[in-house]
Amino acid sequence: MKLTFSPASPFARKVRIAAIELGLIDQIEFAPATVTPGTPNDEYSKIHPLKKLPVLILDNGEAIVDSYVIVEYLDELAGGGKLIPASGPARWKVKSDHSLLQGMLDSMLLCRYETMLRPEPLRWTAWSDDHWHRAWLGMARFENQPDMLARPLDIAQIALTCVLGYADFRFADCGWRKAYPRLDAFHQKMLERPSVKISLPPSA
Amino acid sequence: MKLTFSPASPFARKVRIAAIELGLIDQIEFAPATVTPGTPNDEYSKIHPLKKLPVLILDNGEAIVDSYVIVEYLDELAGGGKLIPASGPARWKVKSDHSLLQGMLDSMLLCRYETMLRPEPLRWTAWSDDHWHRAWLGMARFENQPDMLARPLDIAQIALTCVLGYADFRFADCGWRKAYPRLDAFHQKMLERPSVKISLPPSA
Repeated sequence: MKLTFSPASPFARKVRIAAIELGLIDQIEFAPATVTPGTPNDEYSKIHPLKKLPVLILDNGEAIVDSYVIVEYLDELAGGGKLIPASGPARWKVKSDHSLLQGMLDSMLLCRYETMLRPEPLRWTAWSDDHWHRAWLGMARFENQPDMLARPLDIAQIALTCVLGYADFRFADCGWRKAYPRLDAFHQKMLERPSVKISLPPSA
Repeated sequence: MKLTFSPASPFARKVRIAAIELGLIDQIEFAPATVTPGTPNDEYSKIHPLKKLPVLILDNGEAIVDSYVIVEYLDELAGGGKLIPASGPARWKVKSDHSLLQGMLDSMLLCRYETMLRPEPLRWTAWSDDHWHRAWLGMARFENQPDMLARPLDIAQIALTCVLGYADFRFADCGWRKAYPRLDAFHQKMLERPSVKISLPPSA
């Protein structure tokens, strides 16, 4: 299998951590790719019309998107029920938590594009403030759910780790550790995992 | 169960169509909500930090997000394997198709926000062109997959219907019918379903 990949992508990082934790990383070849909103990349658009990372390309040529579906696929390859509970209320809790975290990452990326990529005279503060606020409120939601932070490893915890790592990477002064001490402790504990440590984003 | 809802939201429409097709619509109460990027809605942010529609609120107070996870939940309530194949390659195909369509809707909404909501002097054509291009290439992908258009009803076909309905609603002059005649035939056939017809967006 091939995974389109960039070390700066929090979505690709999530898949990488999951693949390591599931014992499948040796079966995956990384295919480096660079995509930037506002800049065409016709070659990559043929792989994925949304021009997004990551895509998992199976040996038969089938493409699996998006990062969550890739993790579901890998989880099933590994026997199922490893990072996503197979049934019951826990299944819907983990899935909903993950969707919230996925949306937080989307908002953080929109914020980053607005404040760094968009030409400066065209920036709209109400937009970036709104999206940052969504991510910030999302962090508060998890700060106040100690049970989520203490569950056995699941895809929502991996996604939360990627959210916090992305905050460090792109919003280094945002002060999440001070505002959310439980998330800080959670993140430190996650960093004890080799999968989390090896996949830290590069220096900004 | 309660579903936060707006008739203009293609994501809420997808859940509504799925709920009708699964025979569960009578168990769902619609809770009208309005959310606009750049405009705070503190009350709704308490329900969902991302300030997005739809959210399914269960009778025990648990919230299920996002629209795809809600459909998975409803599908399981209805017995499972109805709109999302329960196993095999078809499962990953439908899920990947759906993820692509979900991302196409995201891009179309970003495009709409850029060209209508953002103050005019702050608009960046390269951004809206890029996002429109993603949706347009995505439509081409499905135009060239006649087998996808002819499968028994699944969540990807419902999402494609919502993409095309949203194109009519917000980009009435984009010319998708002329560019993609197979999608036009597919959409006309889908409109024979009461679930699709009753959920058409309001006049723009």
